[in-house]
Amino acid sequence: VYHALVDRLSIPSARGDYAVVVGRGLLSALDETIDREVGRRAHSVATDRTVGALYGRRAAAGLGCGLIELPGGEPDKAWPAVERLCQRWLADGLDRRAAVLALGGGIVTDTVGFAAAVYLRGIDWVAAPTTLLAMVDASVGGKTGVNLPEGKNLVGAFWPPCLVLVDVETLQTLPDRELRAGLAEAVKTAWIGDNELLGLLPPAGDVTFPSMPADAWCELVVRCIRVKADIVADDEREAGARAALNLGHTLGHALEAATGYGRFLHGEAVAWGLLAAGRLARERQLLSAGRHADLVEAVARLGPVPGIADMDPDLIIRHMVHDKKKGAAGIGWVLPTDRGVVLDQHVDITDVVAVIQHYQEAGFSPSHP
Amino acid sequence: VYHALVDRLSIPSARGDYAVVVGRGLLSALDETIDREVGRRAHSVATDRTVGALYGRRAAAGLGCGLIELPGGEPDKAWPAVERLCQRWLADGLDRRAAVLALGGGIVTDTVGFAAAVYLRGIDWVAAPTTLLAMVDASVGGKTGVNLPEGKNLVGAFWPPCLVLVDVETLQTLPDRELRAGLAEAVKTAWIGDNELLGLLPPAGDVTFPSMPADAWCELVVRCIRVKADIVADDEREAGARAALNLGHTLGHALEAATGYGRFLHGEAVAWGLLAAGRLARERQLLSAGRHADLVEAVARLGPVPGIADMDPDLIIRHMVHDKKKGAAGIGWVLPTDRGVVLDQHVDITDVVAVIQHYQEAGFSPSHP
Repeated sequence: VYHALVDRLSIPSARGDYAVVVGRGLLSALDETIDREVGRRAHSVATDRTVGALYGRRAAAGLGCGLIELPGGEPDKAWPAVERLCQRWLADGLDRRAAVLALGGGIVTDTVGFAAAVYLRGIDWVAAPTTLLAMVDASVGGKTGVNLPEGKNLVGAFWPPCLVLVDVETLQTLPDRELRAGLAEAVKTAWIGDNELLGLLPPAGDVTFPSMPADAWCELVVRCIRVKADIVADDEREAGARAALNLGHTLGHALEAATGYGRFLHGEAVAWGLLAAGRLARERQLLSAGRHADLVEAVARLGPVPGIADMDPDLIIRHMVHDKKKGAAGIGWVLPTDRGVVLDQHVDITDVVAVIQHYQEAGFSPSHP
Repeated sequence: VYHALVDRLSIPSARGDYAVVVGRGLLSALDETIDREVGRRAHSVATDRTVGALYGRRAAAGLGCGLIELPGGEPDKAWPAVERLCQRWLADGLDRRAAVLALGGGIVTDTVGFAAAVYLRGIDWVAAPTTLLAMVDASVGGKTGVNLPEGKNLVGAFWPPCLVLVDVETLQTLPDRELRAGLAEAVKTAWIGDNELLGLLPPAGDVTFPSMPADAWCELVVRCIRVKADIVADDEREAGARAALNLGHTLGHALEAATGYGRFLHGEAVAWGLLAAGRLARERQLLSAGRHADLVEAVARLGPVPGIADMDPDLIIRHMVHDKKKGAAGIGWVLPTDRGVVLDQHVDITDVVAVIQHYQEAGFSPSHP
């Protein structure tokens, strides 16, 4: 069996350190890898229908355990999926010493991780993210949760996996659009803590998995995870520094919510958010013209994203003010600087509206700055 | 306002130490007590309908915050109640810095504590238990959770409150039957770690709140909490020593489940469980005749509990084997010894059936040993 471990990080957490292993072909040696890293086996695999057909059924067969396929859409990231997982684990006889494997994108890892957090008051789980977004973002930091009708991720837990297992070869089957959206988080990460990441992005005009060797993808993923890991290690429960990770997310979350999560992939909404944050920062002289151009160029090279020209700025603002990460007054924005980010707790609403309208009127698309 | 703090314990936990304050009339000075102990205020009160009418409405009015009244029965200790709490807290604008007050018995504190554990991935909560059982058991140790159709407490979290506030005067309005059932846990606690507790029980034949001064109830509650606190401090996540707390619970849980939670109060089922564990221990020469008599006498003086003569021993056993605290094989029982307890992981089923049949055939009732 061809597989190679390319890198390994150790992430500190209140529950104890856990490892992130990044490599090629790791899914073909799941049992061995989990045993080697954490000295145990997985007793159940949970995934969604798409990933189930691609990798899940083979993974469960290899592990010799049951497979649960969740529907996989954002509306299904809700309590009934958590209850279904728990009931199935009960039926399969999993006790509090069991471990489960979550295989899929962020919806799967968030939902399954939360179910692991509450089943019998908490069992171990292994995260095996299969989307670029989940690899660089959702799988590290310990956040799990599901949505309420009122909004996303409103119930959940900080419950880190005992192991994160990233097989970059799963990116082969990821739609290009999702690959590009995931790279928007890599641009965000570059700004927060590793400027060299900008030089590791795929070539403009060919943002596809085959455009770079698998090891280059490994390096990109590892560097993104390292930045996030350093931040969450200092601030696991999101008291302060972790706010930096919200760069691009104030507008991003609002765009997603205002369109009912039907128009933008998360990373696409973050791409708009990065542009808006860049412009607000430039207006405030927080960002030099040169660095502003770097940011715009990095976002633009990821290719086109769905437009915002038809959206009502007031509706977007309403969703922004309800963002649970806002401070007590004003709208909190993480803004890029030449050397990182700053948090501005009170960005004036009229300034935000002006930025939105600027991009609406200019007919701007991230692909054509 | 008349109120007095009688004792104060500090309980270590992975989330940080928290205080248990025990006194008379503390509910009449809620705002002041919470502020003095944890330097904050409660932003919402959650209770059940019974306790709401007795204390909850006044408490919420005094705190100047909203009141949520849950139905309060065991069937309502389920996810819909958690979701309702979260949705109400959202509507009331509670953010992740908020704290909520859970006022009531174990069903309320388990449900509200779990909602606090998952709302925005965890907010602070204050437990104000109003039943003896919740005071001596549910409020300390950090276990929160709700039931699934498959069984009790199958989803939950270890999420200790930031403060436990015990006003023993609420026992004035507790039905005598619940008071007596709560004392069964005190007998259990005596055996686990504080034999002098047996001398602090109310007089046989008058097991009522007025039979002892309020300060005597405070002492009884404080000593029970101290034993539990010492055990959970060593073993917060229930790896080993915490199993001692299950004395009387192997049969107790099975009796409750086999009768659909409709016949026994939890403490009443534990009373039967203590008697059965005592007899099994005596048969195994773990317990001297004198200490066995002490145990039987202590349980008996609490007064009559519903009988088991009509129950099918096989059905009871089936519920025992499904008890999630069982080991991999055999039936695990915590058995009393002359100096404490031991865990026997493999009690033979025929021995358990024989003990059940003994009490069925003898027409035994705990009140008439």
